[in-house]
Amino acid sequence: MNEAIMLITCPDKKGINASVTGFIYQNNGNIIHAEQHTDEQTNAFFMRIEWTLGNFAVQRDKIKEKFEPIAKKFNMKWGIYFSDEIPRVAIFVSKHLHCLYDLLLRHQGGQFSCKIPVIISNHPDARAVAKEFGIKFVEMSAGKGGKAGRERKQLDILKKEKIDLVVFARYMQIVGRDFVNEYSNRIINIHHSFLPAFIGKEPYVQAYRKGVKIIGATSHYVTEKLDKGPIIEQDTVRISHRDSLVDLVRSGEDLEKVVLSRAVRWHLERKILCHSNKTVVFN
Amino acid sequence: MNEAIMLITCPDKKGINASVTGFIYQNNGNIIHAEQHTDEQTNAFFMRIEWTLGNFAVQRDKIKEKFEPIAKKFNMKWGIYFSDEIPRVAIFVSKHLHCLYDLLLRHQGGQFSCKIPVIISNHPDARAVAKEFGIKFVEMSAGKGGKAGRERKQLDILKKEKIDLVVFARYMQIVGRDFVNEYSNRIINIHHSFLPAFIGKEPYVQAYRKGVKIIGATSHYVTEKLDKGPIIEQDTVRISHRDSLVDLVRSGEDLEKVVLSRAVRWHLERKILCHSNKTVVFN
Amino acid sequence: MNEAIMLITCPDKKGINASVTGFIYQNNGNIIHAEQHTDEQTNAFFMRIEWTLGNFAVQRDKIKEKFEPIAKKFNMKWGIYFSDEIPRVAIFVSKHLHCLYDLLLRHQGGQFSCKIPVIISNHPDARAVAKEFGIKFVEMSAGKGGKAGRERKQLDILKKEKIDLVVFARYMQIVGRDFVNEYSNRIINIHHSFLPAFIGKEPYVQAYRKGVKIIGATSHYVTEKLDKGPIIEQDTVRISHRDSLVDLVRSGEDLEKVVLSRAVRWHLERKILCHSNKTVVFN
Amino acid sequence: MNEAIMLITCPDKKGINASVTGFIYQNNGNIIHAEQHTDEQTNAFFMRIEWTLGNFAVQRDKIKEKFEPIAKKFNMKWGIYFSDEIPRVAIFVSKHLHCLYDLLLRHQGGQFSCKIPVIISNHPDARAVAKEFGIKFVEMSAGKGGKAGRERKQLDILKKEKIDLVVFARYMQIVGRDFVNEYSNRIINIHHSFLPAFIGKEPYVQAYRKGVKIIGATSHYVTEKLDKGPIIEQDTVRISHRDSLVDLVRSGEDLEKVVLSRAVRWHLERKILCHSNKTVVFN
Repeated sequence: MNEAIMLITCPDKKGINASVTGFIYQNNGNIIHAEQHTDEQTNAFFMRIEWTLGNFAVQRDKIKEKFEPIAKKFNMKWGIYFSDEIPRVAIFVSKHLHCLYDLLLRHQGGQFSCKIPVIISNHPDARAVAKEFGIKFVEMSAGKGGKAGRERKQLDILKKEKIDLVVFARYMQIVGRDFVNEYSNRIINIHHSFLPAFIGKEPYVQAYRKGVKIIGATSHYVTEKLDKGPIIEQDTVRISHRDSLVDLVRSGEDLEKVVLSRAVRWHLERKILCHSNKTVVFN
Repeated sequence: MNEAIMLITCPDKKGINASVTGFIYQNNGNIIHAEQHTDEQTNAFFMRIEWTLGNFAVQRDKIKEKFEPIAKKFNMKWGIYFSDEIPRVAIFVSKHLHCLYDLLLRHQGGQFSCKIPVIISNHPDARAVAKEFGIKFVEMSAGKGGKAGRERKQLDILKKEKIDLVVFARYMQIVGRDFVNEYSNRIINIHHSFLPAFIGKEPYVQAYRKGVKIIGATSHYVTEKLDKGPIIEQDTVRISHRDSLVDLVRSGEDLEKVVLSRAVRWHLERKILCHSNKTVVFN
Repeated sequence: MNEAIMLITCPDKKGINASVTGFIYQNNGNIIHAEQHTDEQTNAFFMRIEWTLGNFAVQRDKIKEKFEPIAKKFNMKWGIYFSDEIPRVAIFVSKHLHCLYDLLLRHQGGQFSCKIPVIISNHPDARAVAKEFGIKFVEMSAGKGGKAGRERKQLDILKKEKIDLVVFARYMQIVGRDFVNEYSNRIINIHHSFLPAFIGKEPYVQAYRKGVKIIGATSHYVTEKLDKGPIIEQDTVRISHRDSLVDLVRSGEDLEKVVLSRAVRWHLERKILCHSNKTVVFN
Repeated sequence: MNEAIMLITCPDKKGINASVTGFIYQNNGNIIHAEQHTDEQTNAFFMRIEWTLGNFAVQRDKIKEKFEPIAKKFNMKWGIYFSDEIPRVAIFVSKHLHCLYDLLLRHQGGQFSCKIPVIISNHPDARAVAKEFGIKFVEMSAGKGGKAGRERKQLDILKKEKIDLVVFARYMQIVGRDFVNEYSNRIINIHHSFLPAFIGKEPYVQAYRKGVKIIGATSHYVTEKLDKGPIIEQDTVRISHRDSLVDLVRSGEDLEKVVLSRAVRWHLERKILCHSNKTVVFN
């Protein structure tokens, strides 16, 4: 059955919920999920509402027009998505392939409702994996033609492949403003630490030197500032003095896979809203 | 500001959400929280909705009457609560006082919106603590007058003190059907294991003998069947062969306190709905 | 550098540690790890000691003979292993392939010091994976020739392949006494629940029906009694009423992979001792 | 039964273990715990060994002298402790009393083998609690007489009370070099964040603003650099967008209590060794 999902952010006010649910109900939609949240500090209202389109009285391409008066009244930032529009995902990766492999196996197992037409890398290491899963592989080594030129080419590929979401599955390159702006809140990165601790290079080495008793992993949207975008998900695992740096990396990589895959799934299921560098995740 | 909270359970159907939110909106209520859930297996719909009563057009004692047509239409099991009606809680305890102490300190610190007029015990051990916090203490030793008679007396006390919620803070007695029925889904117990593992006596000893690598604690509503009522909250902590039984107990007691206090707080904040021996917790 | 690992279990007594470490030191071995544990309830002593063989004065094949007097004196159950003797592992699997895939990728990534010459299954599903990783695949469907006959054939294969460790990576068959005895404390199973909760069939369905707030996974050695052997490792993850059965399975499978892989690694690194249906894990 | 505990740190070398255990065995001591660790990066060796003194051939006050040749040979930094020498602890606190209360209740319940003769504070809030538990209370408000003078007075009190360990149970003052040096690796602080994230003031506000999905608490030894001393223990708890700042504080305070009490207990049980701003915790 086909469904519509609406994501709404606006200043909190009386009547938002009743107006939105009334609109769906009066047009004969059946609400199957509805979640809302009000941020008390910023007075911002967030809503995710999902309904079946079976007998919905408004044609799919007219919903925007019909809903617009309500959106205007409450000064909404909003989007609508349909469950039969399958998002297209590009994965960027460097030399560590565990997250890439994990994402592809989950995709194969039906955990992600998306298509993955292309894998882009600054190294050749992932070529065999891409081939194994029948996905186009583009190698663009860091040296050639300058960063700006390379990123323009990457954006061309993303445009050509109609990419909706970019996943940095341990892609060890800092991307520029133009790239980030083009995919604002649509690039998910995995950072192998419990942010904001251990920003930047070699977080496992940093953690090992610091002698922390717990390590973590963080998935977040990419912004211009390194490792500072809105956090989507984090998880942690206990370590001890008995764990060598190799042990930290192994334990951490298990976290990375789980934490990245949750973020990707929630994004694909339209469960994430961003606001003032934070996320609301209706999971 | 005074608020109303409505808890609703009914078969899922088109229009519930719009009807409920419409009722509040049209009467000039401002919804501050709204959460819903549909159980796909039983097709049951659950809702918790909270709104400010400031300018609400329906008088507090007329809400039931005015809402009844909607409730009937959707075949709702529902309740309404007001934030200025402070629930009254009785704590039952035996010889282990850590959970009792923890609840009283949290209450003192403002974590629970309730009154605690009475502590009941089958042992004298908690008398000093009760006195310290200025709470009436009733000792009813297990031997005297038979279980049925004792429980009748306990119910009399609860009635006299207008008790809304009973908390078994490590009360090591099995209570009878009449008692349970009188306070259906209003008795919270803490069991010192990860249920359904290690039901009954001495769960830490059972866990130690079994050699589990993680122990847990479970808070649940009390039903006639021992340790089988709807689970409200659970938590776990890692142990190892290095932990003696004493270590297990100490780690476990830290869990018990946290797990019981969460359940009590959620109940007091009207965040829990029960259905088919399971709970929906809108936390 | 080549190393020796000794695992010792015996009744606790004065002088064990000094005798063992003295034996190694006097023969010019360099101890790189030494861990011991005393179980206070059973008065059992456990030790794992690892030393470099570089300048060790006793020839490898004479160590048993030379150490025997100490072992006798303290009534030891003991074993010695050498880091250059790479264990041979057989994986048994049915239709769920996530654990199999995970083990093979970890093996490929260098996490396990072992060889994996054969995968055995009662279904054809894993054939392609086995082929991909270049491992022999033997399908023995449950129906053919009776259980006893099938298990005899399986033991023949294990013998022929000189298998040291059998891993049940979601192998949904109960194995008989002869099989278990042949590989006592050398068969590792993953059970998809927090044992001893939800023994037997469909633990995720059981957990879903029970309404637990946390699910788990357990790796253990296989004994004759279903899901009752010594527990090696467990882990848990939080769920809520929002999680469907599909969500439980997905979260649980992530646990299974991690929990099974830890048990396999610790066994291969000779870090596990068994005693009275419990394990001591020197991790 | 009286026991001796030896803590040893030295460069790793062949024969340390055999020499130490041999010393104890030859003098008729019964080793009840022995743990060692080698840090591969710094080549440092750590050992904790505990034995019963019942029939020990060396008199307690001669052990130092008798062991000195071994210590010298291996260039050891070492200490010896006796289980009947009960450490004396001073607790410093400001206005948040949850950790203080928790420590005193655990002490009362027998979790800590120590005496607590004095509580020192820069505020009057803890006076009633101190009185309730029969402990001397010293108020030294931050304003009076300058920081240096105040700290000298505090050191005088600690000296007079023969304090072995200082616990900062949410003591919101930065202490000076002289104070820290006098109690090097003997001042335990609880910081209400997952260090090194959110150093300094108001870590819960920092965490709330950052939008992290997990919060933590850290106990560590105090050094001159704020919140940078060797980490003893950390723990974390999951939060979500639904949690307000008040919720963060409540969840965090539950962590603080557990994390601080573990550190204090391990220190009192002589289970912690420090090395290059990290800890080895033999728990």
